[in-house]
Parts: sequence; C-alpha cells; structure tokens
Amino acid sequence: MRITTVGLDADDTLWHNETIFRLTQDRLREMLADFASHEATNAKLAEVERRNLRLYGYGVKGFTLSMIETAMELTFNNPPGRLIADILAAGREMLQEPVEPLPGVDQALAELAEHYRLVLITKGDLLHQEQKLAASGLGDLFAAVEIVSEKDASTYVRVFERHGTGAAEAVMVGNSLRSDILPALEAGAWAAYVPYHITWAHEVAEAPEVHDRYAQLGSISELPAWVRGLG
Amino acid sequence: MRITTVGLDADDTLWHNETIFRLTQDRLREMLADFASHEATNAKLAEVERRNLRLYGYGVKGFTLSMIETAMELTFNNPPGRLIADILAAGREMLQEPVEPLPGVDQALAELAEHYRLVLITKGDLLHQEQKLAASGLGDLFAAVEIVSEKDASTYVRVFERHGTGAAEAVMVGNSLRSDILPALEAGAWAAYVPYHITWAHEVAEAPEVHDRYAQLGSISELPAWVRGLG
Repeated sequence: MRITTVGLDADDTLWHNETIFRLTQDRLREMLADFASHEATNAKLAEVERRNLRLYGYGVKGFTLSMIETAMELTFNNPPGRLIADILAAGREMLQEPVEPLPGVDQALAELAEHYRLVLITKGDLLHQEQKLAASGLGDLFAAVEIVSEKDASTYVRVFERHGTGAAEAVMVGNSLRSDILPALEAGAWAAYVPYHITWAHEVAEAPEVHDRYAQLGSISELPAWVRGLG
Repeated sequence: MRITTVGLDADDTLWHNETIFRLTQDRLREMLADFASHEATNAKLAEVERRNLRLYGYGVKGFTLSMIETAMELTFNNPPGRLIADILAAGREMLQEPVEPLPGVDQALAELAEHYRLVLITKGDLLHQEQKLAASGLGDLFAAVEIVSEKDASTYVRVFERHGTGAAEAVMVGNSLRSDILPALEAGAWAAYVPYHITWAHEVAEAPEVHDRYAQLGSISELPAWVRGLG
C-alpha cells in the first residue's frame, strides 16, 4: 500500500468555522428577542436554511440571506430600525473574521507536506475560502485547492484523479462524517475523522462500522503518524 | 502554430446574464420609487456593489445582499412592508432563471469540441454556475470547468497549464475585454472578443491596440473558422 496524496477539509479541520456561525446566530437571536424566543429563532433559521440550501449552497453569503429571511418572517415583514442593516453588518464581519489555524495544524501539515501531496478540498463561497486560505498562512503547503459545491463519492474520485494518483492511494481528513469521511471511503480512499467540538446539524451522520481504511483521531497531531503507518 | 485548447467565458458569452441583472435592477428601482429617483437608486447600488466587491465577489448572492443594503440606505433603515422580502424573492428568482444558450452557441461549441479541448472559465457563485451549465445542456461538450474568483493573467496561465498544453496553444473567448481578453493576451494566449449588447460597468475596458493574437468577432458562429485559421 502506497499513499501519495492527503486531502484535507478546511472549515473546522484547519481553522474554526462553525463557532463563528454559532456566535452570529447567537447575535441574531438577541436582535430578534422582542419577536421570538431563542428556540423559535433557531427553529425558523434552520427551516429557512434547509429550504434555501439547494439554491444558495454553503457559505456566509447564503447564511446572511437566510438570516435576513428569518428576520422578515419573525417580524411579520416589519423589521424595526436597523435590524436588517445589523444582520448585513454581521454577515460582513463573518467574511472578515481573522483566520487562525487550529492547534497542531501548522506542524502536522508541515510534516505531511514533506512526503505527500496535500490537496485542500472544501465547500463554501469560492472567494471567501480562497481568502481564508491566504489569511491562514497555510497556502504554500498545498499542491492544489479544490473548492466544490458538494462532497460526494464522485467528487473524491475526480479530485484524487486530477491531483494525485487516484483515490486508492489517497487519504481524506476532516471533521464531517457525512461530507469528508463516508463519501471518501465510498470513493475507495482512506479516511481519518478528526472531530470538531460542534457539528452543523446538516453534517451529522453515523460513524462507519468497522472499516479497514478508516480511523478516528483525537487530534490532527496524530495524523502524520497514522498516514505513515499505512505503509 | 498549434491550438489545442479553447477557453470559453460563460455569462453573456454562452447565455444571457447581464440582462437578468439589469431587469432585476429595474425592479429594484420600481420598489424604491417612493424613496429615490431611478438615477439615485442606480448610483447608490453601484456604490454599494463597488464597496462590497472585495468581500462578496461576483454572483447573484452578493448582488442580492447589495440590493438589500441599498434599500436600507435609501429608506433610512425604515423599509416598508414587504420590500426586503421582495428583494430576497427577486434574488431567488435570478438563481432559478432558465438558462438558454445564445444563438449559434450550440453549433459553434459542437464544431469546436471535435477538434479542441473546451474549458469553461467563469466567475460567479460556484453552485449557481454549475447549475447553469447543467441547465444549458452544454456540459458534455466541456473537458473541464474552472469557476474562479478573479480572472487575471495568472489565472489563464494556471488553467491552460492544468487543462491544456499551456497558454501559447490556447484561445480564450468571451464578452469582457477586461476579464476575458486582456489578461488572456497577457498570459500568452490567443483571444477572441465576442461582444454582448450590454456590459457591466465594472467590466468595461479599452480594446487592445493592433495585436496579432487578437480578433473581435461579430458572433460566436464565426469562432470555429477563426480558430481553424490559426493553423
């Protein structure tokens, strides 16, 4: 067995992301506190996001539009004062959030980059993901970057074909069982699951049954040794 | 001289796009008619778009957010009734607009695809551009699709390297001098300018001086013969 290529998810694998969405959602709940309970705002936002996912895809711009739609519905189309302007500003702040690699990421990637081709594979807004990679200072470690609209088995087949030597000689690493792990295994790749402390409801899935190409790691710092151990 | 690869812009080269933005902008002006003259709405929207371009990039989602921001400013943060909900709906309609190839596109691409590798190179929202390509029925004619956040000379060097035999053996085709033609020439590629009847202000640029790798065509139907003529 020979591994040539390591694919890495970005959001919540290399840097915080879901935390920023959660904090912004907290702010939305506060802004709407006169109109709806925290639970009602959460439920309405989740419903609006689900409804729009097919049109907006993933990322901050679609999330901002869904927050505005939520606010319009919960205020019965009568948003007070600066409410909508405040949501727009919160969305812009998300896009300008500083990007800092999670603990252990710099070193793990530097070690891996010496022996393997690293490929960043992520969903989200194209421009924003490129900007985050640039801001993270990790860009030079990657041989290729693929920003995709959906992560399914065919995505991994295509990306590891294009940027590596095929899925059978590739490892995929990420915090989402649903987007990073299960479809990569289905594509024939190896997969290392590195959980983040929170997961967006849309990304929740069951861990695979016993699988000889899969491991759950406690942190990304364990990744270089695990990949080396594959042979 | 050998040409192996033809890069094609998508919006307003293969299908209508700017028209849809203009029609939606007309609707925004009507929605805001009680608050601002048509000229004032146009000017404010242009200002807001320019301010947000660096954060939002290109595409319908960012345009929708900029329309909402324009409405908030022109109503002094006091948007009446359904105004914001109507703008959200207008944005969703843009994302669901049917896609029909411009006259002559089907045949020109079918002819070119027999002899050259076709690569779609476009800006905009990732998911939306993929959906438009699928809806156009043209997807099978392309060997590769590159949705990029910016079109500069380095973009064309990279894309023609990755999907072809380098820029010197590639032609770029599009309706924007600024995004499709000038940077492709700078990258060392050939370039065919096929004007669309309207151009977004941000994309306006001067046509190149006499240049031996450049032509302006009256329609995309002239493209196959021009490319064949290159040798």
